[in-house]
Amino acid sequence: MLFDGKLVREECLKELSKKFKKIKCGLAVIQVGDDFASNRYISQKEKLANELGVAFQLIKLEKTTTKELCKIIDELNENKEIQGIIVQLPIPKDLDYEVIRNRIAPNKDIDGVNDVNILRVFNNDKDALVPCTALGIMKILDYYKIPLEGMDVTIIGRSIHIGKALFSLLLHRNCTVTICHSKTKDIKKHTKNADMVISSVGKANFITQDMVSDDVILVDVGFNFLDGKICGDVSKEVEKYKYLTPVPGGVGQMTVYSIYENLLKAYKLNK
Amino acid sequence: MLFDGKLVREECLKELSKKFKKIKCGLAVIQVGDDFASNRYISQKEKLANELGVAFQLIKLEKTTTKELCKIIDELNENKEIQGIIVQLPIPKDLDYEVIRNRIAPNKDIDGVNDVNILRVFNNDKDALVPCTALGIMKILDYYKIPLEGMDVTIIGRSIHIGKALFSLLLHRNCTVTICHSKTKDIKKHTKNADMVISSVGKANFITQDMVSDDVILVDVGFNFLDGKICGDVSKEVEKYKYLTPVPGGVGQMTVYSIYENLLKAYKLNK
Repeated sequence: MLFDGKLVREECLKELSKKFKKIKCGLAVIQVGDDFASNRYISQKEKLANELGVAFQLIKLEKTTTKELCKIIDELNENKEIQGIIVQLPIPKDLDYEVIRNRIAPNKDIDGVNDVNILRVFNNDKDALVPCTALGIMKILDYYKIPLEGMDVTIIGRSIHIGKALFSLLLHRNCTVTICHSKTKDIKKHTKNADMVISSVGKANFITQDMVSDDVILVDVGFNFLDGKICGDVSKEVEKYKYLTPVPGGVGQMTVYSIYENLLKAYKLNK
Repeated sequence: MLFDGKLVREECLKELSKKFKKIKCGLAVIQVGDDFASNRYISQKEKLANELGVAFQLIKLEKTTTKELCKIIDELNENKEIQGIIVQLPIPKDLDYEVIRNRIAPNKDIDGVNDVNILRVFNNDKDALVPCTALGIMKILDYYKIPLEGMDVTIIGRSIHIGKALFSLLLHRNCTVTICHSKTKDIKKHTKNADMVISSVGKANFITQDMVSDDVILVDVGFNFLDGKICGDVSKEVEKYKYLTPVPGGVGQMTVYSIYENLLKAYKLNK
């Protein structure tokens, strides 16, 4: 069975729009430069903002310095009409992203990139603004009522916002969690008997049928291109599984949605 | 082969005392109440302070409030002759430990209990003051030159200062790490093929021979009593292993030492 990311997104959106109808919320996105993919992501965010009745503000800068960008963030932190702030990645290499991400007020950090939110996720703090991809995955698993407690989960990839965030989230849901990465000796050893495998490697055809059990739950966080087509980490030849998040149509469907779930939480935290 | 905690401690101490000879360092321990075990731990700390030429200050309070305790911590945070501050546990239940541990200046928090240090460990920040038991274990593994990279490690127990701290430390040393806990379905599945098993369960005879491979590295963080004797989590019947930290004489030997390793680091951070 396929997890239907679009379906989960639509169902979650219904609930969310009811809640947004009752409040007045503002979101600011800061973009530096004119990256093609960024433009597309930002317009997706704006579209959903319009649907939900969220005031959307794009601050597009041709170029800037870390200091100037921090000043803009400071103003947005103080602005009572703004509940969420996003610095759209990528940003030019001469800007200090460490400084920038930690300048965003933790309770307006709806991308979950500030150290305070990373710590909240690690400490299982209910106020955590969870990084959007990880949050989207949890929403899909919960929509399909996957009984996480006691489940053996293998995560491939240890990025702070995906692998390590999911490690914390799933550990606190009482999964037994293993993290594999580029230095793992034998990934198959850790995936073959896992109840769930989450792959965020970024390589087409990385997960093959022999690596997983026939009733595995496969969460594919990969976003790759092969022969001009979008695909995930899971090979198309993998046909035996309990559940699979397809690419496209799976996890990716939830990312923009998750921003607004975080925005609603941020609204409550800032009240 | 047994890891000899006492040997590692003595060897590490030699290096450390050379370094302490060149500097002037102060350590403050705050104790609330008169817990028997606390008194013993504190006198161990004081003894080592004297050996290393560290100025040791014990602030022993019969009772106090969170507010009063924070005021004492604030003064110690400001005190330039104090580089390390420890609030000896346990403290009375009416005190708010969350508030207290985060009141200690991160760079004087030589027990590694402040959120800033938890985050530093999670983020692999070189300035982290690492919780003492976890630091002691890393010292033992490094003393015996255990080649951690690529090693499959299973940690049993997910406390923030042992299980989760070791998860971060070992992940950043490129181990493939699994965390098991009370809700894990089948712990043996995760220990049987692991290169290293770290047990911090706190149950005598928890780890038996059938649970581990014959060439496992066993790190026993348990501290239990059985028939009036101190023992760890690893059953005495376990005879086949590559390395084992015995209890007593293993990990426990390093805990007080680690405080002073952190104190030296804190001294540098506060300079």
